[in-house]
Amino acid sequence: MIILLRRGAAPADVQKLREDLQNRGFTLHESTGTLESLIGVIGDTSAIDINTLQARDCIERISRIAEPYKKVNRKMHPDNTVIDVRGRKVGNGSLQIIAGPCSVESEEQIISTAVSVKEAGATMLRGGAFKPRTSPYAFQGLEANGIDLLKKARDITGLPIVTEIMGEEDLPLFEDIDVIQVGARNMQNFKLLKALGKFNKPILLKRGLSSTIEELLMSAEYIMAGGNSEVILCERGIRTFETMTRNTLDISAVSLLKQKSHLPVCADPSHATGILSLIEPMSLSLIVAGADMLEIEVHCNPVNALSDGAQQLTPTSFSSLMQNINKMADFMGRNIG
Amino acid sequence: MIILLRRGAAPADVQKLREDLQNRGFTLHESTGTLESLIGVIGDTSAIDINTLQARDCIERISRIAEPYKKVNRKMHPDNTVIDVRGRKVGNGSLQIIAGPCSVESEEQIISTAVSVKEAGATMLRGGAFKPRTSPYAFQGLEANGIDLLKKARDITGLPIVTEIMGEEDLPLFEDIDVIQVGARNMQNFKLLKALGKFNKPILLKRGLSSTIEELLMSAEYIMAGGNSEVILCERGIRTFETMTRNTLDISAVSLLKQKSHLPVCADPSHATGILSLIEPMSLSLIVAGADMLEIEVHCNPVNALSDGAQQLTPTSFSSLMQNINKMADFMGRNIG
Amino acid sequence: MIILLRRGAAPADVQKLREDLQNRGFTLHESTGTLESLIGVIGDTSAIDINTLQARDCIERISRIAEPYKKVNRKMHPDNTVIDVRGRKVGNGSLQIIAGPCSVESEEQIISTAVSVKEAGATMLRGGAFKPRTSPYAFQGLEANGIDLLKKARDITGLPIVTEIMGEEDLPLFEDIDVIQVGARNMQNFKLLKALGKFNKPILLKRGLSSTIEELLMSAEYIMAGGNSEVILCERGIRTFETMTRNTLDISAVSLLKQKSHLPVCADPSHATGILSLIEPMSLSLIVAGADMLEIEVHCNPVNALSDGAQQLTPTSFSSLMQNINKMADFMGRNIG
Amino acid sequence: MIILLRRGAAPADVQKLREDLQNRGFTLHESTGTLESLIGVIGDTSAIDINTLQARDCIERISRIAEPYKKVNRKMHPDNTVIDVRGRKVGNGSLQIIAGPCSVESEEQIISTAVSVKEAGATMLRGGAFKPRTSPYAFQGLEANGIDLLKKARDITGLPIVTEIMGEEDLPLFEDIDVIQVGARNMQNFKLLKALGKFNKPILLKRGLSSTIEELLMSAEYIMAGGNSEVILCERGIRTFETMTRNTLDISAVSLLKQKSHLPVCADPSHATGILSLIEPMSLSLIVAGADMLEIEVHCNPVNALSDGAQQLTPTSFSSLMQNINKMADFMGRNIG
Repeated sequence: MIILLRRGAAPADVQKLREDLQNRGFTLHESTGTLESLIGVIGDTSAIDINTLQARDCIERISRIAEPYKKVNRKMHPDNTVIDVRGRKVGNGSLQIIAGPCSVESEEQIISTAVSVKEAGATMLRGGAFKPRTSPYAFQGLEANGIDLLKKARDITGLPIVTEIMGEEDLPLFEDIDVIQVGARNMQNFKLLKALGKFNKPILLKRGLSSTIEELLMSAEYIMAGGNSEVILCERGIRTFETMTRNTLDISAVSLLKQKSHLPVCADPSHATGILSLIEPMSLSLIVAGADMLEIEVHCNPVNALSDGAQQLTPTSFSSLMQNINKMADFMGRNIG
Repeated sequence: MIILLRRGAAPADVQKLREDLQNRGFTLHESTGTLESLIGVIGDTSAIDINTLQARDCIERISRIAEPYKKVNRKMHPDNTVIDVRGRKVGNGSLQIIAGPCSVESEEQIISTAVSVKEAGATMLRGGAFKPRTSPYAFQGLEANGIDLLKKARDITGLPIVTEIMGEEDLPLFEDIDVIQVGARNMQNFKLLKALGKFNKPILLKRGLSSTIEELLMSAEYIMAGGNSEVILCERGIRTFETMTRNTLDISAVSLLKQKSHLPVCADPSHATGILSLIEPMSLSLIVAGADMLEIEVHCNPVNALSDGAQQLTPTSFSSLMQNINKMADFMGRNIG
Repeated sequence: MIILLRRGAAPADVQKLREDLQNRGFTLHESTGTLESLIGVIGDTSAIDINTLQARDCIERISRIAEPYKKVNRKMHPDNTVIDVRGRKVGNGSLQIIAGPCSVESEEQIISTAVSVKEAGATMLRGGAFKPRTSPYAFQGLEANGIDLLKKARDITGLPIVTEIMGEEDLPLFEDIDVIQVGARNMQNFKLLKALGKFNKPILLKRGLSSTIEELLMSAEYIMAGGNSEVILCERGIRTFETMTRNTLDISAVSLLKQKSHLPVCADPSHATGILSLIEPMSLSLIVAGADMLEIEVHCNPVNALSDGAQQLTPTSFSSLMQNINKMADFMGRNIG
Repeated sequence: MIILLRRGAAPADVQKLREDLQNRGFTLHESTGTLESLIGVIGDTSAIDINTLQARDCIERISRIAEPYKKVNRKMHPDNTVIDVRGRKVGNGSLQIIAGPCSVESEEQIISTAVSVKEAGATMLRGGAFKPRTSPYAFQGLEANGIDLLKKARDITGLPIVTEIMGEEDLPLFEDIDVIQVGARNMQNFKLLKALGKFNKPILLKRGLSSTIEELLMSAEYIMAGGNSEVILCERGIRTFETMTRNTLDISAVSLLKQKSHLPVCADPSHATGILSLIEPMSLSLIVAGADMLEIEVHCNPVNALSDGAQQLTPTSFSSLMQNINKMADFMGRNIG
């Protein structure tokens, strides 16, 4: 961390700053120029609150040099983290395909969809039981009943199940869920992240609509700091000024997350674009960019879906997409599943 | 709601669409042109999920005409909602000033700050007991103990207290809190919003960092739909490409919220800017734009604050700010308190 | 400027870096820690291209400490710049109100509008002769003829005229224009900025839709570096994710520009919001935030306007707005004109 | 275009609106509901200015249904436009690779770089002679001399040359340039677009930093409306809140532009990311997403580059990138060159 002192700062204030930092165990390196005077702060500065430090009159500006995330940092853990989900490995160079409907709507719907995505080659099943909806008047999910239906679908297909949690108090319902998803709107629900840090299940952590890559890593750090090291990061589109797509898929985030962190990276082309005709080109591009996992919405009957119909593939179009995903995985030397 | 049909849509698909909508109780008005064919859907369309409807092949585009929010809509409730907080009225044309530290840190700190903001003219006291922090290694708040200290400060000063809730499971601790704040990161924590809809306390709902004005209104709708009509909307800066300020204060949102909704509107110049020298000009501008309430961070000793020091005013500078707020309130015909 | 060296950087590379910087006349201050090694670069670093420097393998990160703008910087020129526009002073604490139509459409239209805004209290007249339009099929302005009509309106009302230039090659037409406006889309048209740097007229420089405050200052620096020191900075709304307003008025930019620079600051509530009912509250707020000048669109007959009708005030509503602007100016101790 | 009438609109105003639209040749289809009354406007509405129409009191809201772009629209021209650049075809399913330095700096530099990118497999040469720089104190390019050096490099290597124009008045210098680039900051320099519409050369039109996909298409429409139909659209990263990458590469825009328009699409991974380690994964992803052309910065000696050093590949790393681009092109059935 580098502190730029304000020109004409009172020497007593600067001395107080020095002492406070040294008392907290930091080593200081000073550089006094004619125009600028700097203090380099050496040590584990991740616990320093820059905003607070900046309240001191003698300080002009502070730059953090070290990354504030540690456990998720590839520098601290150079090898890829590999997460085992009922025998399927995430993060070892293979490619996992999560498919399924936006919401679990009925036994028939989830089982029919599960069977067809399994046939087409998906390796995990998704389906929302608790649905975060902008409007209180929209379908809110089948909740506990939806969880039960997912388990039935798993019994029938053998596909591990992925579903979203919306609050700590629902955790008991997730004890037998294979991957617990944290949605974009909850990426900084720190209460929930802390609870998941103590829960022994893989977590699929979606990037918030306007969260930076660093904030996503810090949210993963919350879970890891709690003791749970099975975190999968997920890019799902960010909010920008562009309105032609629902969100803007930040594909460079996928490659960058793989470089900055050892955690596996997933991407969700369905939510990122909201446009059916973009799902195939984006899925293939994401594989090339290094995604370990894709999450794709498929519904046995999108026209009658209770949520997000427009971006859900039919089983037929998903099957055709999987053929191209297979070819691309092959070309990239990646095994599906 | 207006549906633009795709050119060359199959007549059978269009007929199916017509029937489905009529079965849901909507009246249809069709307009068939040489280039474009439209179906106007008349009725309460707020429960229609546009994304799902759009899954139908026969549809090119859908535009929602009616606003999706109802209970918060000024059209449905032309008079200002006035909320009583221990005798202080919010929303009746008066001006309320919430002041206090970012975090409650100690008995001495909160009481000393409370006494001085009271003297300077603040009408409510803020202080964070549960703190949403980007880093798991940063100070997380005194939690239940912080709540107790706020009550002590209220006993001494008589100021109503405002503090943030981070999860439904903490609600029992908030039974004696005067205004419960929902932070920007929880604006779409729908579980929490639903729980607050059944809690009998005024809610200060902060706009998410990248939430639209409509989404803020929809989150307020969640609380009102649950039965709690005491919601105060709060603009606190949005995330944009600009980095010189911490966030971008969307002052036009304040005026617009007053026009679109009957709910009182608060604004937080401290978080919106993150820059001390901007707090006074922004506070005064916000009063002019129509804010019913301001929330301003004040700390008895910002240099030693455990969070957000840089944007917290000293009691002295807050006192000087209050003099100018008083003059502006006078000029605008607003009574403080 | 501070350079953080990469851990394990080759000593020869670092030595080369040192020599190159010293050869360019900079003084270096080094600080070698166990974790981090820094080089502070002292001198006028505004000509250093950070992107290029960063190509060196031995460098991890570079932070610029000094602001890259000089002539526009208040640190270099603490007193307000005051610009004389036909006897009206901009930047001396007074308040100037530019009013007029989006486009000059006809002699009758511009003169009728000019006479009424003069009567209502405007101090300058605006009107677009060259119009930057998103669509090539939209009205593009009367061009040279529009300039002539503006001069007629000035002859009749005595109001100085403000109009937009779109390209260097049109400069000869602007020799008798009182204030030359550079539109948001041309804020980084550096050819034009250079040409205006050598033109002896006040320039009203509008902030680009997604230009940072620093970039706006750098564009003003281009004009000043060319020799023209009469630049007025103008906030006119930035592009964000919010769609309810046309743009997002960044009111804190107005206060911040006044702090960072000695140049006068204008604001344009008409383009910033695009909503008639917001023009009055935003105009008054902007005065409070420190704007030296407001630019407001007024049209004698908005319903028949050839461009931007929806945000143009009628003469009657402008007159009523001016009454409130007068009261606010009075309260703030500002003289109009 | 659909007009939603305001509830309680004066019948005389609505009648006036009907007549004005009919007088302009539009056919109207009305739909009067209990809650909402609509007028559908049928005809070529691309010349209607929505902002002006909206000034009428009787109108609540207007939605444009038809796309405002015509000549660039794939609906009007289903086949791919193919542009011939000295025998190389752009847009016919092949892949063109433009490579070269950010700026032309010297004869030795441009020729050495040109020879090496040719050897590595690039099919066109880029190099900036006129440089748009944020700071007036930064290197501004060799201008006319730079153009001459590019031609020399073309003579030696046979590679067609691509270089940026900054103003209409420089056009005579571009008569022998193979592809004229319009930079992001000039995407809405309408004077320049109009001039290029009458110039008989292929134009590489870069998307503005915060320009929507629709605005990019409208700027291309300007050039085509002038008579020049050889336009190549270029995605080069947009400005968002994310700061870890220089810009955010909007890869879905590449696929979407190919769907919406018949024009060829280029992408620039160098400017989009500003990070060397992202150039390869993004280049390969962009090919998969459907880009017809990539523009990649390569410098014979990035450490001594006069601009943008950090994102310029060395000839060696470009050569290694080209090997992977070749494999991907092969896999996708695309011929380079």
